[in-house]
Order: sequence, then C-alpha cells, then structure tokens
Amino acid sequence: MIQTQIQPISTALASALLNKINNKTKPLGSLGRLEKLALQVGLIQDTLTPELNKPVMMVFAGDHGIVQAGVSPFPQEVTQQMVFNFLSGGAAINIFSQTNAMQVRVIDAGVNHHFGMVPGLIDAKIGMGTQNFLTTPAMTQAQCEQALTVGISLAHKEFESCSNVMGFGEMGIGNTSSASALMAVLCELPPEQCVGRGTGLDDAGLQKKIDVIKAAVAQHKLDAKDACQVLATFGGFEIAMMVGAMLGAAEKKCVLLIDGFIATSALLVASKMQPEVLEYCVFAHCSNESGHRLLLHYLKAEPLLDLGLRLGEGTGAALAYPLVKAAVNFLNEMASFESANVSQAE
Amino acid sequence: MIQTQIQPISTALASALLNKINNKTKPLGSLGRLEKLALQVGLIQDTLTPELNKPVMMVFAGDHGIVQAGVSPFPQEVTQQMVFNFLSGGAAINIFSQTNAMQVRVIDAGVNHHFGMVPGLIDAKIGMGTQNFLTTPAMTQAQCEQALTVGISLAHKEFESCSNVMGFGEMGIGNTSSASALMAVLCELPPEQCVGRGTGLDDAGLQKKIDVIKAAVAQHKLDAKDACQVLATFGGFEIAMMVGAMLGAAEKKCVLLIDGFIATSALLVASKMQPEVLEYCVFAHCSNESGHRLLLHYLKAEPLLDLGLRLGEGTGAALAYPLVKAAVNFLNEMASFESANVSQAE
Repeated sequence: MIQTQIQPISTALASALLNKINNKTKPLGSLGRLEKLALQVGLIQDTLTPELNKPVMMVFAGDHGIVQAGVSPFPQEVTQQMVFNFLSGGAAINIFSQTNAMQVRVIDAGVNHHFGMVPGLIDAKIGMGTQNFLTTPAMTQAQCEQALTVGISLAHKEFESCSNVMGFGEMGIGNTSSASALMAVLCELPPEQCVGRGTGLDDAGLQKKIDVIKAAVAQHKLDAKDACQVLATFGGFEIAMMVGAMLGAAEKKCVLLIDGFIATSALLVASKMQPEVLEYCVFAHCSNESGHRLLLHYLKAEPLLDLGLRLGEGTGAALAYPLVKAAVNFLNEMASFESANVSQAE
Repeated sequence: MIQTQIQPISTALASALLNKINNKTKPLGSLGRLEKLALQVGLIQDTLTPELNKPVMMVFAGDHGIVQAGVSPFPQEVTQQMVFNFLSGGAAINIFSQTNAMQVRVIDAGVNHHFGMVPGLIDAKIGMGTQNFLTTPAMTQAQCEQALTVGISLAHKEFESCSNVMGFGEMGIGNTSSASALMAVLCELPPEQCVGRGTGLDDAGLQKKIDVIKAAVAQHKLDAKDACQVLATFGGFEIAMMVGAMLGAAEKKCVLLIDGFIATSALLVASKMQPEVLEYCVFAHCSNESGHRLLLHYLKAEPLLDLGLRLGEGTGAALAYPLVKAAVNFLNEMASFESANVSQAE
C-alpha cells in the first residue's frame, strides 16, 4: 500500500567523515552531539560536504472527533483560528521559522471548516475532521491511504523545489489524544504512560482523558503490527498526512526534523511501516508533554533540546534547526590542524 | 578598586511582561524556558519590546605559566596558533558566530607571542603569559587590575558601538587549570570536584592535574572572600579580562551569554565582586568538562543547552544565541489571542 522505498543510509563514507571531523582544529570529540549530527547529515547525503537547502517547515492541520469526549480545554474552532494565525504569520511557528530562515507551509489535512480559496493555504483536505474514535474508527482505510499518499507527494514536491531538510509540525485540537492512543497501541504500553495534559488539562481532565484513551484502546482491540489500521483507527488526518510526508522526505534522502509528541507519534507510525525512516531523523527536542520522553526512549532517539516546550506546531524543530546548520557548517568550513598550522595533542 | 556599578534589574514591568507572554496564541506556559528568557531580556532592558542589537562574541586569549606543571596534552604554542586561526576565520567559534550572525572580536589579553600589528587582533596584552601559580601568584595585583579595567572598557566600547548582547569566549592552553583553582577556592570545594580532563587528559594526566591544583590551593592559603586576590593568584589574563568585560557589559545593561567552564569561572569571580552581574546572564550550556555542572549549580544557573560540548572559545554561547533571538522575537511578534481572534481555554 505504501509506495515509498526508503534506502538505509550508506555508511561508505563513515570513516572519511570521522577523519574529517577529528582533524578539525579542536580537541577530539569536543563538539559532542554536533559531531554526531555532522556525521549523520554527511551519511544521509553520502558526501563529505553536505548542504542544507531550502529548509521547509510543513505544518499539517486537522480536527478530531475525539474532542466530543471532552479531552481538551480548548474548543475545536481553535484549529481553524490557528490556521488563519499561521497564514497571517502570527503564530509561534511563524516567528521561530522566520528567526531561523525556514519557510512555513500550512496544509489543511482535514480541518472542520470550509476555507475556500485562501492565499497561502495548501488544500489537502481529506474530510471535515475525523470521527470520534471512542466509538468508531477515526477514518476509513481509504481516507488513511489518501492522507498518506498526499503527504508523500507534498514532501516529494518540496524535494523537487530543492528542499533537502524538512521539519514537521501540526495543529489540531484533540491531537494529543490521537498521539497517545497511537503510542499506547504501537508501543504496547499502558495508556496512562502515554497520556499527558496536552494544552493544559487539570488533574480531573487528565484522568478523564486517560479513561477515554483506555476505553478506546480496549474497544478496538488492534494488532500492534498493523500500523495502517492503527493509524486509521486513532487517526488524525494531519497525523496520517505527516506520516506520509516523513516517508516521502526520507525516500528522497532529506534530513527530517522531528518536533514534539505528536510529530514523534507520526514518526512512530512511519517507522512501523518503514524502519529505515529513523536513520534520516534529527530529534529536535524532548517536550514537556508527558509521554514524549518515553516515546523518544522507545525510538532510541537523542533529542537536541530540552526546554520544557509543549506547544507543537513544529516549534521545537524550528528552534533546533540552527544546531543542524552549525554542525554542517563546521564540517564544511572549519580549518584542519594541518591547514591552520595548529599543533596536535602530544 | 572595581569601578563598575551594576544596577539590579528592575522588576517594575514583570507583571506586564508576564501578561504579554500569557496572552500570546499558545497554551499557558507552553514555551517553557523561552518564556523565562523573554521575561529576563524584557526586564534587563526594562521594556515590553526588547531588542537584540549587534551581537558580539568577545574571545579573550592568554597563556598560562601553569602549563610548566604538565597539565595539558597540547603545547603552549597552540594558543597563538589558535589566535591566528580565529583571525583567519577557521575556528569553531568563527563558524558558529557566522552561522548565527554574531561578530567575533579576538583579544590578545596575554598570549606568549609578539603578534605585532595583525589586522583584526585587539592588542590588550597584559604580559607574555602568566606565572606558574604552583609556585608564585599568576599575576601581580597591578596586572590583575589592569586586565579588569581593560575588560570593562572593551565591553563599554562594544556598548557604545550599539551592541547590547555579548558572548564571552576564551582560548588559552592550561586555562581549565586556572578555572578549576578559582572554582575550588571561591566555591570552597575540594579540588578533585573542580578538575576535569580539559582538552583530553587521560586518567594519569587527570590525577596529575588534580594533584597540581590541590598543591597550588594549599600553597597560597587564600581567603575565599577576597575575589581579587584569588583572581590574581590563579589568574589567566584572559580570565581576568573576561571578568572585567562581564562587569562592564552588565553595567551597561547588556545581555551576557555565558559559555562553558572557563567563562563560567570568570563569571564566578565577577559575581563575588558584584553579585548583580548574575541577573544579566543567560547560561548557554552545560559543558562536558567535569566541574561545570557543579559550578552552574553553585550559581543557581539553568543552562539552555546540554550537548556534550567541551571546546570553549564561546562556542556554546554562539550556539545558544538563536534561542535568545527566538525568545525576543516571539515576545515582540507573536499575535495575541485577541489580535488573532483565537479562542482561549474554557
């Protein structure tokens, strides 16, 4: 069903890259995580001189039937209101992307609002929000496949426009519930370890959300191995489309910037479909949403930042991007001991 | 002796700033540490619309007599070689500063080399390296005062050229030994908790370095309250000048970007002279140099990054700077719930 063919990254240049890194004018290993990043990007692009071109932040928006179960303190209209905020440049992701020279794409994957023709909005609507997964699958298998296919083609389109580094963000009131359910089923973990306060639930709200996710997981009795069915059931059109975009970007050997809890849940789904996708990922940050640290641990991911963020939209990915740039730049531009005539350790 | 008069930051605008932050289109508190940063910069500049102008990275270089005790695997010539590397743009700090649009200043505070007139080098030489503090104070009180005074005036000059955000970096073979001794005496901690591997000592080298610092601390029997004498004794011309520059920058209400172990040891000295300096500091990162985490803890500092860096030069400060920019930009540019017509939590 998934048409992407993701290649494992070649390690042919690993020792040449390490050698280049180790000969830079600095004590061995002294750039820590940035050295690993430089190596990873070099391997992804299979070159000693990688480049980051046209960084794009793709923000997928969708609505969620599960909000009917009272899992968010914000009303559903906020999804569409935030789409307009993205389009007018007033949201956090706009500011951080601009600060770090990334372009933002705003994609209507399935918001419960007829936008019509709105300048700047990419219309990829699969439906007017998902169904309430407490009672019925969030979407049909056909919708899920459509979302994946569109996501793949959106990433391919960015690649064809010369982007080779893509961040993935999202907006969708209720989507931490989707992400929690995906995590619980696919990681085979108890829902209470996967559910957090989202946009700011109090203790009673959190307990209710846990109960809802528990009931939903129990209701559908899914096979953790069938990632497509799990995705369709707990859905999120924006999550499904992000899964597709991640797969499409990795197929084109792009660097993937993975944001917070929801983006990582999409990657979890993608990794169950094609595990090689993980090799292309830079994990931007560990968010403050309960469950994210555990999910990163499950994926053996080492996040770059840990700043108590829990906003989504791709904000953590945009904030981490300068570190990726710095890593690539030192690999390309720093002098070697030899070129700078600097003595080495005795 | 110190001529700076650092004002405590005014908290007059604290509630107005918090109100502005809380009304941005995001869940309450969801930008985590960036919200604290935005608040801090607003308070430092005493405005709801702070600006970051002409960010400068001041890199102070100096040589250390203590290298005669065999505390570094690199030869002393590396200090002067790295100064030339800074000037030709090939060092890590050049690359990271350029990546993040900061200007680098290279200051000869006391390198053991006659540079003569070299384009781009700021000649502030106090001496041809310090004395070996294992046997004698690293510098005289007069030299120490001169270094502090020059540092203050260098920061004032940057301020007069319209910079209001300054990073502080350093280069000096042997200067982790200086920093460790300063920390041990001023924090009243056992030297073995303050000494690390520096540029890459092995176990035997580390033990030797610990023994050297222990012997030096025991030899001089200093009063932890006399920060000036402690600074002169364990020195580092580049460290003393950095202390001055930090005090001078804080006096002008600039934002100070504090790098790794050595820069933080300079700040430790500065804070013993004028504790208010700490209010102006953004702690860029926790380095991998043993002792830095403890020193940050002593200063009640919350570093932004934790990437296993241990290079110095100001590299961590340059890498963290985009986070400060992002914080200021969201405070100034993000829409409010009202301006964007976004509904709030119920």
